[in-house]
Amino acid sequence: MGDWLEELDRLAHERAKAGLTRQLRPRSGADRVVDLAGNDYLGLADHPRVVAAARQALETYGLGATGSRLVRGSTDAHAALETALADWTGAESALVFSSGYLANLAVVRAVASVCDLVVSDAYNHASLIDGCRISGLPVRVAPHNDPDAVAALLDAHPGRAAVITESVFSVDGDLAPLAALHAVTSARGALLIVDDAHALGLLGSAGAGGVAAAGLAGAPDVIVTATLSKSLGGAGGVVAGPAAFTRHLIDTGRTFIYDTAPPPAVVAGVLAAVQVARAADDRRAVLLHRGALIAGRLREAGFAGRDPAAGVLSVPAPGPEAAVAWAADCRDHGVAVGCFRPPSTPDGSSRLRLTVNAGVGEQDFARALTVILECAP
Amino acid sequence: MGDWLEELDRLAHERAKAGLTRQLRPRSGADRVVDLAGNDYLGLADHPRVVAAARQALETYGLGATGSRLVRGSTDAHAALETALADWTGAESALVFSSGYLANLAVVRAVASVCDLVVSDAYNHASLIDGCRISGLPVRVAPHNDPDAVAALLDAHPGRAAVITESVFSVDGDLAPLAALHAVTSARGALLIVDDAHALGLLGSAGAGGVAAAGLAGAPDVIVTATLSKSLGGAGGVVAGPAAFTRHLIDTGRTFIYDTAPPPAVVAGVLAAVQVARAADDRRAVLLHRGALIAGRLREAGFAGRDPAAGVLSVPAPGPEAAVAWAADCRDHGVAVGCFRPPSTPDGSSRLRLTVNAGVGEQDFARALTVILECAP
Repeated sequence: MGDWLEELDRLAHERAKAGLTRQLRPRSGADRVVDLAGNDYLGLADHPRVVAAARQALETYGLGATGSRLVRGSTDAHAALETALADWTGAESALVFSSGYLANLAVVRAVASVCDLVVSDAYNHASLIDGCRISGLPVRVAPHNDPDAVAALLDAHPGRAAVITESVFSVDGDLAPLAALHAVTSARGALLIVDDAHALGLLGSAGAGGVAAAGLAGAPDVIVTATLSKSLGGAGGVVAGPAAFTRHLIDTGRTFIYDTAPPPAVVAGVLAAVQVARAADDRRAVLLHRGALIAGRLREAGFAGRDPAAGVLSVPAPGPEAAVAWAADCRDHGVAVGCFRPPSTPDGSSRLRLTVNAGVGEQDFARALTVILECAP
Repeated sequence: MGDWLEELDRLAHERAKAGLTRQLRPRSGADRVVDLAGNDYLGLADHPRVVAAARQALETYGLGATGSRLVRGSTDAHAALETALADWTGAESALVFSSGYLANLAVVRAVASVCDLVVSDAYNHASLIDGCRISGLPVRVAPHNDPDAVAALLDAHPGRAAVITESVFSVDGDLAPLAALHAVTSARGALLIVDDAHALGLLGSAGAGGVAAAGLAGAPDVIVTATLSKSLGGAGGVVAGPAAFTRHLIDTGRTFIYDTAPPPAVVAGVLAAVQVARAADDRRAVLLHRGALIAGRLREAGFAGRDPAAGVLSVPAPGPEAAVAWAADCRDHGVAVGCFRPPSTPDGSSRLRLTVNAGVGEQDFARALTVILECAP
């Protein structure tokens, strides 16, 4: 049995050889990079109303929530945000978590109380996969975006199942066939769990999300999760669904009960962001226009890729090193783009991942597009 | 197969019969309850320096971090906080997470790369237990605070193991025998993982934590986790340990890679809190004095209980209903205390859980102590 630190070094060396080493690159407050990598789709993280609401709550409550939601961590700001999120998404109730990751862990685990099988889309986010693992339920992985395959898996199972999907998938930005999936689940008495992280604020009437856009808002057999850190420019996660389900999470959800509540200032800022986002049809129009524009220009340059369903574009790269070099070149020219490599990609391939941010200025956006094309391998 | 909502209602009814229903009680900004329930041990959540630093970062960066740590989420504030936490705790490096829960999940999962067994204290926090579950490693549960039992479990195992404990246990506030545990683990080539959440800022020289207090700061076979939401008055979690280990987390830690970074304003506020906490020997003295005072008065009144090792006191109650009634009576008299019932308690019993907050005024503290005794069952 060798030294554990030597073993970690050996593993790091293997990752380096495979091109899988990751770098933290802290940005300063003076950073003026054009951001086509972050998830602040509507540009609300530094919106004056959002910042002002957070500042006000910081003065009122101090920084931390000082305890879990069930002890001292629930403030009027938390309650108001939950009411606003339920109203916006059309759900009977909503419950806020300190992270979308923790919300997803809670939801999958909670359905284990009423289900005995999980059917999970092959491209689901790490937090949903970990949720399956932690739930202890048997898991069947369904081929990506394939309602017929889901139907076959459900038909082969006598008990009640939960089907889990994202609405807009985080890596490739493609849209799940939610209406078809719900037709399959509802006909078979199964639940449908939808991670709406990359669609809330972007799709649906007034940005109510991908579930709402599919006509499923408030459906009694649908549970929605989302982050508050993407289009809402803040941090945290939310579960929206029937009141009996959020009631169950309050009483039994380990990642709800045993976690410090999100800071009141963050919660208050997100509440302001919800109000701005509901009225932000102009920003949503800019976002969709820009997404189609980038996708079209990349196709003209010979890169595969479809128009984004919301704010995420995925551009295949020849390999992990090429993807890293492409992203580094863009960064050297003042444009931040994402670079996704295994194990962050569901199919083991590497790609540039671009996000559209409606808060980026028109000229900056045009320049970023030029840079991305000029740096292409 | 009945309706799932009816099944949830049935489960809720069972919990209600067992006295296990939980209530969210949002507090307002005007709330003047004396807080002996939260974890803001040093009273730093509303410290002027903490609030000012958070406000400044809010103006500089906006509200959210806008992406994961590896994409757009790392700012200079994150890097500065990690340097400060490593320096304070005496570790080679530190890595910040958006929640202590997520930090614990990451650590236990990561040691699965170099270990093939986990030995977990019977009273460990839910996040550590979930970490064991998600790691996929075989788990042996050791009797609470029993180094001999840990030694026997390690001696029976041929490979490398990781031993997991808290330093100050979250429910009962008792101290783990860290030096004895480390003697056992180091002699057997095992790792020691210590959750220092309830000791960081309170124990050790300059509040460096329970691990430092046991003389284990910087030990190459010790990994420390902690929250930034208790004595530091903010939110988030941290892993402190050898650089090779945090490097491993950056490259492979799912709850690090696939989670939005904590907001810069929260991180900057916590950095200010670290600076205040290092110099806060006066607050630590108040805390220890008050803890001994409460414990003594409760013993005089016939309640079992020892002096707290840090800021947490546990007072056994006759049952869940009595615990709930006691806490409700205190609340009606303007004093917030915790009430822990199954499944939050490791032994299935119920208790009042009191925390000492050095930020509470002297008169308020004296009044709270009187209220707790007068409301006792």
